[in-house]
Amino acid sequence: MFESLSIGKVAMLLSMSSDSDEELIRNKAEAQGYKVFKGFVGAMDSSKIFASIETAAKREKFIKNIYREEHSLYHAVLEAYEGVCRGQIGLGNVLRTAGLVFTIVKGSRLPGDVKDGSWIAVVLYGNMGAPVKGYEHEVIGLGIYPV
Amino acid sequence: MFESLSIGKVAMLLSMSSDSDEELIRNKAEAQGYKVFKGFVGAMDSSKIFASIETAAKREKFIKNIYREEHSLYHAVLEAYEGVCRGQIGLGNVLRTAGLVFTIVKGSRLPGDVKDGSWIAVVLYGNMGAPVKGYEHEVIGLGIYPV
Amino acid sequence: MFESLSIGKVAMLLSMSSDSDEELIRNKAEAQGYKVFKGFVGAMDSSKIFASIETAAKREKFIKNIYREEHSLYHAVLEAYEGVCRGQIGLGNVLRTAGLVFTIVKGSRLPGDVKDGSWIAVVLYGNMGAPVKGYEHEVIGLGIYPV
Amino acid sequence: MFESLSIGKVAMLLSMSSDSDEELIRNKAEAQGYKVFKGFVGAMDSSKIFASIETAAKREKFIKNIYREEHSLYHAVLEAYEGVCRGQIGLGNVLRTAGLVFTIVKGSRLPGDVKDGSWIAVVLYGNMGAPVKGYEHEVIGLGIYPV
Amino acid sequence: MFESLSIGKVAMLLSMSSDSDEELIRNKAEAQGYKVFKGFVGAMDSSKIFASIETAAKREKFIKNIYREEHSLYHAVLEAYEGVCRGQIGLGNVLRTAGLVFTIVKGSRLPGDVKDGSWIAVVLYGNMGAPVKGYEHEVIGLGIYPV
Amino acid sequence: MFESLSIGKVAMLLSMSSDSDEELIRNKAEAQGYKVFKGFVGAMDSSKIFASIETAAKREKFIKNIYREEHSLYHAVLEAYEGVCRGQIGLGNVLRTAGLVFTIVKGSRLPGDVKDGSWIAVVLYGNMGAPVKGYEHEVIGLGIYPV
Repeated sequence: MFESLSIGKVAMLLSMSSDSDEELIRNKAEAQGYKVFKGFVGAMDSSKIFASIETAAKREKFIKNIYREEHSLYHAVLEAYEGVCRGQIGLGNVLRTAGLVFTIVKGSRLPGDVKDGSWIAVVLYGNMGAPVKGYEHEVIGLGIYPV
Repeated sequence: MFESLSIGKVAMLLSMSSDSDEELIRNKAEAQGYKVFKGFVGAMDSSKIFASIETAAKREKFIKNIYREEHSLYHAVLEAYEGVCRGQIGLGNVLRTAGLVFTIVKGSRLPGDVKDGSWIAVVLYGNMGAPVKGYEHEVIGLGIYPV
Repeated sequence: MFESLSIGKVAMLLSMSSDSDEELIRNKAEAQGYKVFKGFVGAMDSSKIFASIETAAKREKFIKNIYREEHSLYHAVLEAYEGVCRGQIGLGNVLRTAGLVFTIVKGSRLPGDVKDGSWIAVVLYGNMGAPVKGYEHEVIGLGIYPV
Repeated sequence: MFESLSIGKVAMLLSMSSDSDEELIRNKAEAQGYKVFKGFVGAMDSSKIFASIETAAKREKFIKNIYREEHSLYHAVLEAYEGVCRGQIGLGNVLRTAGLVFTIVKGSRLPGDVKDGSWIAVVLYGNMGAPVKGYEHEVIGLGIYPV
Repeated sequence: MFESLSIGKVAMLLSMSSDSDEELIRNKAEAQGYKVFKGFVGAMDSSKIFASIETAAKREKFIKNIYREEHSLYHAVLEAYEGVCRGQIGLGNVLRTAGLVFTIVKGSRLPGDVKDGSWIAVVLYGNMGAPVKGYEHEVIGLGIYPV
Repeated sequence: MFESLSIGKVAMLLSMSSDSDEELIRNKAEAQGYKVFKGFVGAMDSSKIFASIETAAKREKFIKNIYREEHSLYHAVLEAYEGVCRGQIGLGNVLRTAGLVFTIVKGSRLPGDVKDGSWIAVVLYGNMGAPVKGYEHEVIGLGIYPV
C-alpha cells in the first residue's frame, strides 16, 4: 500500500499513522531516502506549535545552523499552520484549541529527483475545536520549501 | 494498515491513493459506514474547483436538494480551498495553477458515533505551482462540516 | 415598521434597538417563530467575545449539548467577528478595543420557510476604536449557519 | 422607533427598510443632518459593487472631485465589502453571487457632533449564496471613514 | 540624489538612512514642506508598534486631538504593519520578532499639491525573523491616509 | 549617501531612484556584489505583475532553470505583492489599478556575508489607486527569500 511516495505524502501518511503503521511508513520512506520525524504538540497558544517544531528540527538535525535553512523551515511551518486554520488565523484568540501531530520530512520532492535538490515538508494533523472534550474535528496543514 | 479510521482520514487517504490502493480504502471506509467519492479537477480558475465538487456531490447524492446541505458542502469546499492556498488566496490571479484530486466523504466524525450525526469532509490534494511543467509541489486542504 | 422580517434582520434590528424598541422587535420576532437573545460584551481580548456568546447560547438553550450545534454557533460567531474586523483581524494586538451588543437569533431563514429547517444568526454591533474615550465608530458583523 | 440615530445606524436601517419604511427613516435621518442614498447592485464580479457605489456617490455629490474624498469613500466600500465576505474574500472566484442593497450616508458620527466633522458610511446588505435560486442567506458589511 | 520627493519616498528614505544621511533627507523634506519624525520600536507584541507610533505622533503634534485624525493615523499604521507582515499577520503568535525604525511624515502627496490637502505616511522598516540573533531579514511597510 | 547597503535597501533605493540616481545606486550595489534589475509593470490584472517579474528574472539569469529557484523567486514576488496590497488582496477585483516599478536584487543579505549564501529580493514600488488619473498614492512591497 502506498508504494508510490513523495515528500508530502510521506509527511501526511506518517502524521495519520497509528503506532503499528508508523514503523512501516518510516521504513518505506527511509528506504527512498527521506529523513523523517514525528512529534506532538497541543496548544491554544499558536507560538507553541512553531517552537515545538523548530526545536525538534534543530535537535534532529533537519536544518543546519544557518538562517537560510531556518527560514525555509519557518515558512513550511507557517504554511502548515495556515492550512489548519483554513483562512481564519488564530487559536486561543478565537477560542479554539488544537491537539496536533507534527511531522517533518526532508528529501527530494519525488524519490530520485536529484536535480532539484532537497526540500523540507511540515505537516500538522490532528483535531481542532472548542475547549470542551470531544468538541473538535480533524484538520490538516502542509507546507513545503526547498532547503 | 490504517485500521482506525475517521472521516477526515478516509478523505485524505483516498485522495492520496493510487488506483490499486483506492479499492482497499474505499472498501474499509464503506464497511464503516462512510459514503465516498473521488474526482479530479485542474484549474487556474478557482471557481472551477467549487463547481466540479458541487456538481459531483449533487449527482452522487451526498446532499439533498435543500440550501442548508448545500451550505455545509460549500463551506467544506471553501475551507479545503483555503487549505491548499495556505493563507494567500488565489490561483490564476497570482499566476499559479493546480492539478487536484478531490474527495468527498459523508458519515460520522468517528465510526459508530451516531449521537453527533452526519458530517461531510472535502479534501483537495495534488500539486500547485507555476504554469511550467514540473514546477509544482504538493498541497492539501481539508474542510469538515455537519450536514 | 419593519413588518417583513428575516433571521438576519431580526438579529440586526435587535442589536441596534434602544430599550424601548427592543420589546417591540422581540415581540414581532417571537410572533414569527424566532427565538432571540441580546447581551453585551466589551473587549480588547477577542476570545472574550466568543466565550460570552457561547455561554449565553448554551444557558439560553439555543443549541443542544452536541458538537454539531456548537460548531454551527461557533462559525456564526467567527463570521460576525470577521465582519466587525473588516478583513484585518484582531483587537488588542492591533491596539483597538470594542464595546459590542451581541444578538443570537434562531429560526427559519424567512418566516414560514419550514422546508429548509432551523438556522442560527449571530450579530455583533457596537463601536470599535482606540483605547481613548470617544475615539471609536460603529461596526457590525453577521454570521448565519444552519443548526 | 429608532429615535436615537448615528451614522452607521442610519445606513443599516435604510438598507434593511422596505419601500414604506424607507421614507420614514430617510426623513428622520435628514432631519438630523444626514445626507442619504440607497441603491442596488447584483454581482458575481466584485468590481461591479465598487463601481456602482462610486458612480452613485459622485453623481449624488457625496464627495467632491478630489482624491482625498474618493480615497475615504473607497476605503468605506472596501470595508463594507470585507464585511459581507466575512474574512474569505471573493464572489465569482469562489462560486458565489450576491444581490445587495447599498446605502451611502454622510454626516457626523453622532447627531450634533460638529467638532469631529463629517464622515461617510457605506453599507452593503442583502443575500449571498450559490448561483441557484433561493440558495442564499443574509450578509451585511459596514465601512466608515472621515471625509 | 533623490531630488524629486513625494510623501512616501520621504518616509522610506528617512527610515533607511544612517545618522549622517538622515540630516540631509530631513532638510530636503522640510524644505519642501514635509513634517517628519523618526523613531524605533522592537517587539514580539504587535500592539507595542501601534502604541509607540501613536504616542510619538501625538507628542510631536502630527495629529490634532480629534478622532478623525487619530483614525487616519491608525489606518496608516495598520497598513504599514500589514506590509511588514506580508499577508500573514502576527509577530509573537507566529514566533517571530521585529526591530523596526518607524517614520511619520505629514504633507502633500507631491510637493506643492495644495489642492488635495494634507496626508500622513507611516513607514515601518527594519528586520523581522526568529528570536535568534542574526536570523532575520529586511521588511518594509507603508501606509498613507489623508489627514 | 547610503554608504551602508543590504539586499533590501538596494532593491528599495533602486526602485525609488530617478534615471540619474539609478546609475549611482546600481554601481554601488554591483561593487558590493549585488546583481540588480529594474523594470516596470502597470496592471489591474495582478497576474501580469507576476509574469513580468518572472520573465525578467529568467531572461536576466537571476535564477537557474530549476523549480527550487523559481519557487524562491515566486514567494518573493508574492510577498512583495502582499505588501503593496496591505492585507486586502486584489487589484481589478476591488476596482483599483497600479503602476509599479519592480526591482530584483540577488546577493547576500548583508555585503560580505558569505556564510549564509545567496538571497533574492523583489520590490514593487509605485502608485495604486482608482482608475482615474491622479487618484492614487504610493505603495511599496518587499519580499526576500534564499535562492
